[in-house]
Amino acid sequence: MKSHGEPVHALFEKAFAGERRSIGQLLSVIEQGGDQADSVTEMAHTFTGKAHIVGITGAPGSGKSTLTGQLTRISSEAGWKTAVLAVDPSSPLTGGAILGDRIRMDDLAGEETFIRSMATRGHSGGLALAVPAAIRLFDAVGYDPVIIETVGVGQVEVDVAGTADTTVVVVTPGWGDAVQANKAGLLEVADIFVVNKADRPGAKDARRDLELMLDLGHISGLNDQNEFRPPIIMTNALHGEGTNEVWKNIKEHGEHLHSSGQLEQRQSNRIHLEITNRLNRVIGEVASSVLETKAGRELLKSVASREISPSEAAKQLAAKVLK
Amino acid sequence: MKSHGEPVHALFEKAFAGERRSIGQLLSVIEQGGDQADSVTEMAHTFTGKAHIVGITGAPGSGKSTLTGQLTRISSEAGWKTAVLAVDPSSPLTGGAILGDRIRMDDLAGEETFIRSMATRGHSGGLALAVPAAIRLFDAVGYDPVIIETVGVGQVEVDVAGTADTTVVVVTPGWGDAVQANKAGLLEVADIFVVNKADRPGAKDARRDLELMLDLGHISGLNDQNEFRPPIIMTNALHGEGTNEVWKNIKEHGEHLHSSGQLEQRQSNRIHLEITNRLNRVIGEVASSVLETKAGRELLKSVASREISPSEAAKQLAAKVLK
Repeated sequence: MKSHGEPVHALFEKAFAGERRSIGQLLSVIEQGGDQADSVTEMAHTFTGKAHIVGITGAPGSGKSTLTGQLTRISSEAGWKTAVLAVDPSSPLTGGAILGDRIRMDDLAGEETFIRSMATRGHSGGLALAVPAAIRLFDAVGYDPVIIETVGVGQVEVDVAGTADTTVVVVTPGWGDAVQANKAGLLEVADIFVVNKADRPGAKDARRDLELMLDLGHISGLNDQNEFRPPIIMTNALHGEGTNEVWKNIKEHGEHLHSSGQLEQRQSNRIHLEITNRLNRVIGEVASSVLETKAGRELLKSVASREISPSEAAKQLAAKVLK
Repeated sequence: MKSHGEPVHALFEKAFAGERRSIGQLLSVIEQGGDQADSVTEMAHTFTGKAHIVGITGAPGSGKSTLTGQLTRISSEAGWKTAVLAVDPSSPLTGGAILGDRIRMDDLAGEETFIRSMATRGHSGGLALAVPAAIRLFDAVGYDPVIIETVGVGQVEVDVAGTADTTVVVVTPGWGDAVQANKAGLLEVADIFVVNKADRPGAKDARRDLELMLDLGHISGLNDQNEFRPPIIMTNALHGEGTNEVWKNIKEHGEHLHSSGQLEQRQSNRIHLEITNRLNRVIGEVASSVLETKAGRELLKSVASREISPSEAAKQLAAKVLK
């Protein structure tokens, strides 16, 4: 099992010893998926469970990248060994820019901060497996917190952010009304709401809408098995206004998870989702191969010629692979 | 099998006879998923294969909704019975606005135009099944073209647009460089490129980047099994500049698919993806239920306590359900 000419276990040992380059190489292995990526997970898994996993998500243009940049700065300055994983291909973090172009990623990415973007070239299920694996690696080699930025569009992306220990959902006055926003399932995963660009008209309305939805129980937070009403924080992330408050609330939520015993539940939920996704991949591969058999190709033809429906074909194929 | 108090087959008959309200109700049935949604698919499937399926996708803020609005107008004015499915929760089409607020959806949505947004509340796999089912319904009841607008972020969303007969990918000068954009797998699915907001600085650069990538074969189009080099069209969709040209190219690409025999291949690819997704759902349900068994819960605990890794747990669970 080789990667970049070096065995994965050797890379892992170096990563564990703090060698940044090896961490980067392992993240590339994880991105590529497959058996090698699984090996990283096998090795890292034992050493995990210490990091506070923070998800930051929001609609495109909500300023979540800017907020992520600010939180990374605050966290790093407070002495935390911070890792950031940006899963949004349109995130400026991906291009190496943080906080607009005012602070470059490199300024922050000293020994104690690791910023990485992740993109999987559209192969289905890739992101759903790669992100937990990357979180696990960061956790295992001593990063805490691990901040995940995802765009709040797309089911996988919302899932990924929603299964963090603490999920921050960023909304803006501009994104349309909150009810509309919730169609994406985005508001439901929030532990903390941020109304960013709070200097814009409509910011107070956005806040009031969220308060109302919380009052009515329309969004109690899927994440909220205990009574922790998501705070709503007004920010102007570009100018750093309110961002310390967001950071403070993230830390408080983390402490709440610890003291209430909810942390284990969160970790368990995350593992549940990951195993489900992994299981889907394993059986999905079997499913793909049955589609390529003679019987599979014939079924496909029958659907194309409208003799049978896609749902019927799926049932017949399932019967071939399931016990 | 009841829905809204009326059996699905009765709704289908009315939809088939052109009753708009029934079409809307069936789309709701499809959105909810499950057996009833499958019934709609079973009934509609026989009558499909006539519509030209057009996917419009692009990054958030690229103006793809505005372009979709313009194309819908052009198509309708040219006498086509046009259906639009907007899968982006942040699309202005979703809120009933088309072309900013200058033309309301209702102005277009006469007898011959059907505009609908679709949102699935984050239940994994929902979108991947609901969109093909909705396309099938529109096709069966006589809409042509069927235009699907998806945000080009998220694997499911890119897949959905990428398996259209003709896929239009909208880029803007503002989204960062084309190489970056391609990380999302977005450029690869294009049959037609649109550089929107072409009055902005950098528009020519965006065009040149795309030409170069096409020249180098970096993006030949996964869709492009034949020699059809994706044209690149400069637009300013908000002011309708270049949009007739886009429409003309969509029609030409449709004719090319017909004359080259590629249309069948496209339909077959789409059916392949749909059956794969359906099969994944069927066996995914089995997988979920095995996770809830005693053995499943114990495996989950072993992973949480770090005795075994998630990949090992997935393998053991797969062995329980697969032949």
